[in-house]
Amino acid sequence: MGRVRISILGSTGLVGQWMVKLLDNHPFIEVVKLSASPGKVGRRYGDAVSWFVPGDVPEYARDIVLVSTDPSDHKDVDVVLSALPNEVAISVERKLLESGINVISNAAPERLNPRVPLINPEVNWDHLEVLREVKGSWLVKNPNCTAAIISIPIKPLQELIEELHIVTLQSVSGAGYLGLSYLAIDGNVIPFIKGEEEKIEAELNKMLGKQSRDGYEPWNRPIYVTATRVPVKYGHMAVIHAVLREPVDQDSVINRLRSFRSLPQEAGLPTAPREPIRVINRVDAPQPARDLDPMAISVGRVLVRGNVLRMVALGDNLVRGAAGASILTLEVMRHLKLL
Amino acid sequence: MGRVRISILGSTGLVGQWMVKLLDNHPFIEVVKLSASPGKVGRRYGDAVSWFVPGDVPEYARDIVLVSTDPSDHKDVDVVLSALPNEVAISVERKLLESGINVISNAAPERLNPRVPLINPEVNWDHLEVLREVKGSWLVKNPNCTAAIISIPIKPLQELIEELHIVTLQSVSGAGYLGLSYLAIDGNVIPFIKGEEEKIEAELNKMLGKQSRDGYEPWNRPIYVTATRVPVKYGHMAVIHAVLREPVDQDSVINRLRSFRSLPQEAGLPTAPREPIRVINRVDAPQPARDLDPMAISVGRVLVRGNVLRMVALGDNLVRGAAGASILTLEVMRHLKLL
Amino acid sequence: MGRVRISILGSTGLVGQWMVKLLDNHPFIEVVKLSASPGKVGRRYGDAVSWFVPGDVPEYARDIVLVSTDPSDHKDVDVVLSALPNEVAISVERKLLESGINVISNAAPERLNPRVPLINPEVNWDHLEVLREVKGSWLVKNPNCTAAIISIPIKPLQELIEELHIVTLQSVSGAGYLGLSYLAIDGNVIPFIKGEEEKIEAELNKMLGKQSRDGYEPWNRPIYVTATRVPVKYGHMAVIHAVLREPVDQDSVINRLRSFRSLPQEAGLPTAPREPIRVINRVDAPQPARDLDPMAISVGRVLVRGNVLRMVALGDNLVRGAAGASILTLEVMRHLKLL
Amino acid sequence: MGRVRISILGSTGLVGQWMVKLLDNHPFIEVVKLSASPGKVGRRYGDAVSWFVPGDVPEYARDIVLVSTDPSDHKDVDVVLSALPNEVAISVERKLLESGINVISNAAPERLNPRVPLINPEVNWDHLEVLREVKGSWLVKNPNCTAAIISIPIKPLQELIEELHIVTLQSVSGAGYLGLSYLAIDGNVIPFIKGEEEKIEAELNKMLGKQSRDGYEPWNRPIYVTATRVPVKYGHMAVIHAVLREPVDQDSVINRLRSFRSLPQEAGLPTAPREPIRVINRVDAPQPARDLDPMAISVGRVLVRGNVLRMVALGDNLVRGAAGASILTLEVMRHLKLL
Repeated sequence: MGRVRISILGSTGLVGQWMVKLLDNHPFIEVVKLSASPGKVGRRYGDAVSWFVPGDVPEYARDIVLVSTDPSDHKDVDVVLSALPNEVAISVERKLLESGINVISNAAPERLNPRVPLINPEVNWDHLEVLREVKGSWLVKNPNCTAAIISIPIKPLQELIEELHIVTLQSVSGAGYLGLSYLAIDGNVIPFIKGEEEKIEAELNKMLGKQSRDGYEPWNRPIYVTATRVPVKYGHMAVIHAVLREPVDQDSVINRLRSFRSLPQEAGLPTAPREPIRVINRVDAPQPARDLDPMAISVGRVLVRGNVLRMVALGDNLVRGAAGASILTLEVMRHLKLL
Repeated sequence: MGRVRISILGSTGLVGQWMVKLLDNHPFIEVVKLSASPGKVGRRYGDAVSWFVPGDVPEYARDIVLVSTDPSDHKDVDVVLSALPNEVAISVERKLLESGINVISNAAPERLNPRVPLINPEVNWDHLEVLREVKGSWLVKNPNCTAAIISIPIKPLQELIEELHIVTLQSVSGAGYLGLSYLAIDGNVIPFIKGEEEKIEAELNKMLGKQSRDGYEPWNRPIYVTATRVPVKYGHMAVIHAVLREPVDQDSVINRLRSFRSLPQEAGLPTAPREPIRVINRVDAPQPARDLDPMAISVGRVLVRGNVLRMVALGDNLVRGAAGASILTLEVMRHLKLL
Repeated sequence: MGRVRISILGSTGLVGQWMVKLLDNHPFIEVVKLSASPGKVGRRYGDAVSWFVPGDVPEYARDIVLVSTDPSDHKDVDVVLSALPNEVAISVERKLLESGINVISNAAPERLNPRVPLINPEVNWDHLEVLREVKGSWLVKNPNCTAAIISIPIKPLQELIEELHIVTLQSVSGAGYLGLSYLAIDGNVIPFIKGEEEKIEAELNKMLGKQSRDGYEPWNRPIYVTATRVPVKYGHMAVIHAVLREPVDQDSVINRLRSFRSLPQEAGLPTAPREPIRVINRVDAPQPARDLDPMAISVGRVLVRGNVLRMVALGDNLVRGAAGASILTLEVMRHLKLL
Repeated sequence: MGRVRISILGSTGLVGQWMVKLLDNHPFIEVVKLSASPGKVGRRYGDAVSWFVPGDVPEYARDIVLVSTDPSDHKDVDVVLSALPNEVAISVERKLLESGINVISNAAPERLNPRVPLINPEVNWDHLEVLREVKGSWLVKNPNCTAAIISIPIKPLQELIEELHIVTLQSVSGAGYLGLSYLAIDGNVIPFIKGEEEKIEAELNKMLGKQSRDGYEPWNRPIYVTATRVPVKYGHMAVIHAVLREPVDQDSVINRLRSFRSLPQEAGLPTAPREPIRVINRVDAPQPARDLDPMAISVGRVLVRGNVLRMVALGDNLVRGAAGASILTLEVMRHLKLL
């Protein structure tokens, strides 16, 4: 298998920056184009970006001259990774597809389109198989960052679960670098994030469902979600109360979580976490300030009482929930010889 | 009805300070003694206290010389209000009772003792009736601050509810002024508060149950609680998912909440909020930074979907959840001629 | 003296909201018009404003229908109070003046114009006398919020001072409600505020200088300022190291600060603080979280060592530094029969 | 030159943890003993420590069984590194010295003792020469964390400076992990740190002075310091206004800062930063959240106006200001064959 040449749309935003960083020294993915909003086109990436990610702008990216989102600027790449804002994404991505260019996208539009795979690699890499039938260019979507994080610890328990009550405590970076003002969120909790609860419910049901050549069958469980924003910079937490079909042993739940592995682990893909789920024994885990892992989900406070399983999950909204998931999806697709 | 003379134990702590403040210019409760830990006994309150509550130390309290917790220092009061830490409370309160002194206490020990009324006035003032039979001194307990806050919006919906899933987002002041270091909680969430989940479940079931001369029958509903600490100074929030016996109309739920009144309102007691529950229409309410009321519970995000009711409740953990509840209980007791 | 009828420009911004609040129940200033940006014109104030100030939108303001900034909308007022952003202020204020309308403005443009009085009432109310000669409409400027705060404790010490070294620690609200994102400033210090250091130096020298009918003579002292932004919501702090002409007694400095009174105090104006400067003895004062007063400046850590005087000053940037200063200036002008 | 065997006192505190981390895989320093307070003695380090430093407890340290501070527990080491709290340090360190054990200590006592070298390696490594005359065990002190940070950018400019005005904005970790409660410092500034201003003045003058076999001559410049605590987790900032003997060219100042190198750089010592001073061109640098380097000092906002030089310096209070400085001192001493 050869190298994969890609370009990144929205490369100066928070998610785009993480893509640039994660692809530094990647063994087989090569960034050949970086694109940004019109005002930045023509400038060097290193000059145009306000770099917020830890460390410096990777050497390789500094001198890349920013291009537009126009298909003509992305002719010679195998895949375009899109970290565009939702409002912009819909028309830009359609244009690229119509020009025969493949896209893996973080943006929300089309995620629930039954003909578009919505992929969180460890959870439903097999949904990608549908692409074998596709003629011409294809579109693959990343899930919402919180749905990406929650779906992982749900996956190995899926068959036990009847119904879900989820409360999220989401970090400010989920709203973008300028998304929330200090006066609005410092020392505060905002128990509302526009559209988030609906996305989490629908996307979990889609990813945890079955997709085959003949169609698509969602998981179809009642999922009640309340989403809140908390004054934390990075990391989304979810408190999950799962109503089970029948009581199960708590240790067997922990064991299912700990031993969960999927194709990315089995294939040893570069961006895959060794263990997708880290169950932490410390009584007050997981905490954003202490337990955040780029690609693995940290889980704590596992408790089974009667037919209710409680656990708290924490994941990195920018890496696992966005940039890293896109890249891992690309690695899976190459492994499956889908590109 | 005459004046009530009281003393305050733990008067220099956060809850004790709020008692001192709330009793400034009270129409019929008179603070005659203030007590503090041994190192402070003998000093003027105004000198010994590190005052954290908004505004200045009330005039009336400044020159009161601090006394000990010994019964001999509280002979001439009608009731002792205790804001003692749990470790200290158990023996001090017992001694006072044995010396024939009545106590209303915020401390946790004895809350679940079936012979001790656990009172949140709007919710279960009628549990106080049991005291008519008591010979000698009595002990009344305040609930845990979070249980106090949650029980109010549950009360008018109680008969509809089968089961509760509750996730709390509790402020740092709940752990006391020095309870959490900046390095531990700033920009972080700690999804564990020792003993809190058990207290909330047990105390809700006790308060929402029936107490009669013949005994005590708890509400006995399954209540699944996950308690988290968030970097907020004041105000505890609870996300409540209530599984209902049967679907109900959302507007009728809102109406029940809005029109809820209880004895404290009917009797026009000085510390009673005019409306115990404020349902706020703003889509992103309630927020600690914008919607915190000293004695009323702010409720938002009310949604009924199928047989699940969701609402978010917010209350002042130091006032409604502690100091104010004690004082309101005292006002109710005087109104009921129980003292 | 009769009532003063005013309108407020920029009434939905942070400073405008404080004007609306401070003028609630004012004894002789009546708000007759509220103006906002084009998108809000025609809506009720209570509906159009996102109210961030403590308490609710004052009753009187709720139903006022927002008007434009056009002179035709402000014909029937005695004075327009402007809380406009700097970019907008320059042309709007000029148009009002040309239409014969008087303006008291918080915006930066024209503050250093030698023909425009720059007024912090306790410091240089006498600079207003120049207006007696003015034919037609007049413009009066409020100082920069930090210059307003610092100038007060400097005033009674002015004759002792040779040179100033000032480091400011300014709160986030100084940049407006959306001025700084949480990710940018939480847990951080930004040691740069565009244009601030130059404003503080120039405005202090102008206000502390002499203005007469024949011209204007600045104080002309070297003032070295470094301005920083800190993660605090409200209140600007300044650490002042003043090089003195000669050593002075520390107690006499404290006495000068404590006993400082000016025209607003002598005339008993409604918005004037009783004592413009509160010297706080607590060793760790002044702190934004504990010592912020709406109109008085809190001063602590006064120390004279050799010929250097050190003090730390703290003031409310939205009230003393903006909305309250404008209103107090208006009260002084009425007292002086300048309107 | 052979390996250096050391033990660490106070190894479970914030500074001690950083020592443990920085010495992981050190080329020639070997940690052979870790000591902690009596309650932890006998436990494995990995079990006893609440690890707050990024990453995990280094492998090498996990199974080390904690020993006491008693000299008998430190017989077989070349040097003891002390990260003890000040109250404990004085007697423990004296006992070690009396038992013939060498100590490099972060604690404040004895820093101003004229017979004890106070060392910040790049600034005054030559003060160590005095130890060549010492018979028996020796004590070397690390400076106060803020003095360590400030002394570095002052060093290359020292001969130009007549007088210093310094305002510090110090992070919460300087007070230890539990040093400041969230309620006390969040959203606040505390303009007082006990003893800090005196230490900074005296220690800067000592380090920047000359120490010879015949005695010790401090720099003896007037240094006016105001120390404040800000809600930042890591990194101390200092705003420095230096009064110069005569005006100098701003570029030459920047050049002196940038080109400053000292013995640790020339000898290529493992813990030495390549460039001790990083002058950052960004207009709003240095910021704790963006520009903190473990061992180098970040400098920004350099400005010369008349005979006043202004600059803002930022350093890591736990590494450069404590743990890293101790280790670098040890590396210098080995290089100088002083051990």
